[in-house]
Amino acid sequence: MPISAERIRADIDAIARFTESPGGADRPTFSNAWRQARDYVIEQAKRVGCKVRIDAAGNMHARPESVDWSTPVWLSGSHIDSVPRGGDYDGVVGIVTSLEMLRAAKEDGIAALPLELIIFAEEEGTTFGLGMLGSRAWVGDLSVEQLSAVRNAKGENYIEAGGPHDVRPSLLLEDAFDARRYLGLVEVHIEQGPGMWNAGVPLAVVTAIAGRKQYKVKLKGVANHAGSTSMADRKDALAAAAVCILQLEGLANGLGEQTVITVGRIECHPNAINVIPAHLEFTIDFRSPSQDVLTDGDAQIRQRIEQVCSRRGIEHTIQPTEDAPAVQMNADLCANLTRFAAKIAKESATAVSGALHDAAILAPHLPTAMLFVPSRDGISHNPAEFSRVEDVALAAGVLLELVVTR
Amino acid sequence: MPISAERIRADIDAIARFTESPGGADRPTFSNAWRQARDYVIEQAKRVGCKVRIDAAGNMHARPESVDWSTPVWLSGSHIDSVPRGGDYDGVVGIVTSLEMLRAAKEDGIAALPLELIIFAEEEGTTFGLGMLGSRAWVGDLSVEQLSAVRNAKGENYIEAGGPHDVRPSLLLEDAFDARRYLGLVEVHIEQGPGMWNAGVPLAVVTAIAGRKQYKVKLKGVANHAGSTSMADRKDALAAAAVCILQLEGLANGLGEQTVITVGRIECHPNAINVIPAHLEFTIDFRSPSQDVLTDGDAQIRQRIEQVCSRRGIEHTIQPTEDAPAVQMNADLCANLTRFAAKIAKESATAVSGALHDAAILAPHLPTAMLFVPSRDGISHNPAEFSRVEDVALAAGVLLELVVTR
Repeated sequence: MPISAERIRADIDAIARFTESPGGADRPTFSNAWRQARDYVIEQAKRVGCKVRIDAAGNMHARPESVDWSTPVWLSGSHIDSVPRGGDYDGVVGIVTSLEMLRAAKEDGIAALPLELIIFAEEEGTTFGLGMLGSRAWVGDLSVEQLSAVRNAKGENYIEAGGPHDVRPSLLLEDAFDARRYLGLVEVHIEQGPGMWNAGVPLAVVTAIAGRKQYKVKLKGVANHAGSTSMADRKDALAAAAVCILQLEGLANGLGEQTVITVGRIECHPNAINVIPAHLEFTIDFRSPSQDVLTDGDAQIRQRIEQVCSRRGIEHTIQPTEDAPAVQMNADLCANLTRFAAKIAKESATAVSGALHDAAILAPHLPTAMLFVPSRDGISHNPAEFSRVEDVALAAGVLLELVVTR
Repeated sequence: MPISAERIRADIDAIARFTESPGGADRPTFSNAWRQARDYVIEQAKRVGCKVRIDAAGNMHARPESVDWSTPVWLSGSHIDSVPRGGDYDGVVGIVTSLEMLRAAKEDGIAALPLELIIFAEEEGTTFGLGMLGSRAWVGDLSVEQLSAVRNAKGENYIEAGGPHDVRPSLLLEDAFDARRYLGLVEVHIEQGPGMWNAGVPLAVVTAIAGRKQYKVKLKGVANHAGSTSMADRKDALAAAAVCILQLEGLANGLGEQTVITVGRIECHPNAINVIPAHLEFTIDFRSPSQDVLTDGDAQIRQRIEQVCSRRGIEHTIQPTEDAPAVQMNADLCANLTRFAAKIAKESATAVSGALHDAAILAPHLPTAMLFVPSRDGISHNPAEFSRVEDVALAAGVLLELVVTR
């Protein structure tokens, strides 16, 4: 089974050339660059004897010509849409591994490889403001009404913008995901963190995708003259926020290694050098692969902010803005992947995905797992994003073992 | 000497009506409202037998008709310009006390009260981006070139905007401040902090005006995915800033009661809920009435930020943006004011001004002091600003004792 890192390299480079602006991957869903990338993948799939179809939600599917659409096969793929000024590997490696498996199988004379390549439409969420739209719509988590309510920068909703790319709202229910057609899903993806790169591990089997809770916190102190108000007389919203931020950092460290809390956004009012901050907003992004930790952490986050504000005489509100549950990957599937990884890659590890992926959407419906390859220095969503094609080839090799072993 | 709180009330109300927008004092220097307020004061001064002149820098002076401009007299006044949506007392109380002294003296048959009322032009700094312009230009701290370099929201520089209001750049040197014409300066002002209001003190003799050091701090961490970057792998610029903010708060508390440190402004980039903050800017405003504390504090501020950033692998720069020295008020003058306060007000206190005032500009040139009246709940630079006219009348009474006692 001659999986070729060189062919994977060529696919990644080819897709990288489809970008709306130079100097990074810029492929908003349904843009010209996105469509060109999809057409490239379709052409490559057809060259190795695949038939291709676009489902009503806009996801692309490719299977060997001789394999009926209703025959249960392995599903594998990811996405080609990118964040603005993103990298060339995020999503793309999950597509090119499937292409390479189909190629390698054909070279080996396997005409009916039980594999379906999928390109999920709009994974990133930066085009329509909501992530994993294609997979959510396919499995029935989003209705036509919901798809009509999200809009891109041009003001077009998902249905309007997707029309020229074969999104067909009238067929959404009829053409929805059918679990009987699949054995399981394995999504290959870059890690997007520095863990594997720093540890020198070429491949990891993902055991869980972290759940995510997000909050918007508003603090209200009192604006006063920075010169004539003593330290004791202040109700400084920014100083209170600073304590909250450090409490949250400590909480994340205490809750466990795979749990993270980030305050990424802060807005201060009046935000003037000589006025004590009166109003302050900050966001919290809290992730853990353990649902128990998410529940416990939620209570602790609220309690700590409450305590800080109460002690400092600061009013506060905490508004939850997202609550995505932690998703466990299929244990048997993970065990099989680990076994094949030991055979092919010699060395592998297990990992938890801190980022969300289409795999999290499919996991409730299908035995699901993911394979991670290392991201250089953990950099992602950035033109400097880089992963070794040798590692991507390893992932393709492990996955091909799974697909051909029944 | 019938100082009248009612007349003071009437003056404050009259000046409050001159505002560019309703719902607060809005009198940018050289605006119509500002000019109408100045014209009101001129009219009131003339009614009690004063002559009036505008100096080349734009400050208004009024003396009893019979007192020559070169005769040494007490100087007393403040400003009528306001911050946007400011209050009716800031600056104004220093003007109306002088008006009331002139009125009371005239009623008592004192035709030649040795007092000159002054309206300093542009104290707040919100019109031209630099405070105490009128006093600085008058004492020779600012040149015509410097006055030509500061611009208001309309793009006019101080010279251009001041032209219709008798600013005359060609006479700036000739018409500059001459110490031989004055016995000293006493500026009456609201405290702008809650200290006196909370303590129930009606009047305070200001012993020093705090010096002010300001800084712009830039931190540089690494932007990374909030989900897939472990707590240990982060270089979070906002978390580092939070530690700095709390270190600075602690430092201010440690340096002494009259020392304050404020982080009033913070800007975070990319400022996104799911990205670890990479770049961060914040300002520091550090004030103390002690020059030694300012010098010591400056070193400690730098050291603590350095330590925090070094421990967290964050790059940083600290740029000083202002360095105004602490100014001691004249001890003899303060002692005399305290003596008269004991006689008139029964109760008084000493205070330190955390805010800067025109008195700080005159202090190196003239025996200078200030009298503070309480601000309700410490609120200032706000339409809710309030001080009791009875307290303002007390200040006028104490000052009149000083002026008539030679």
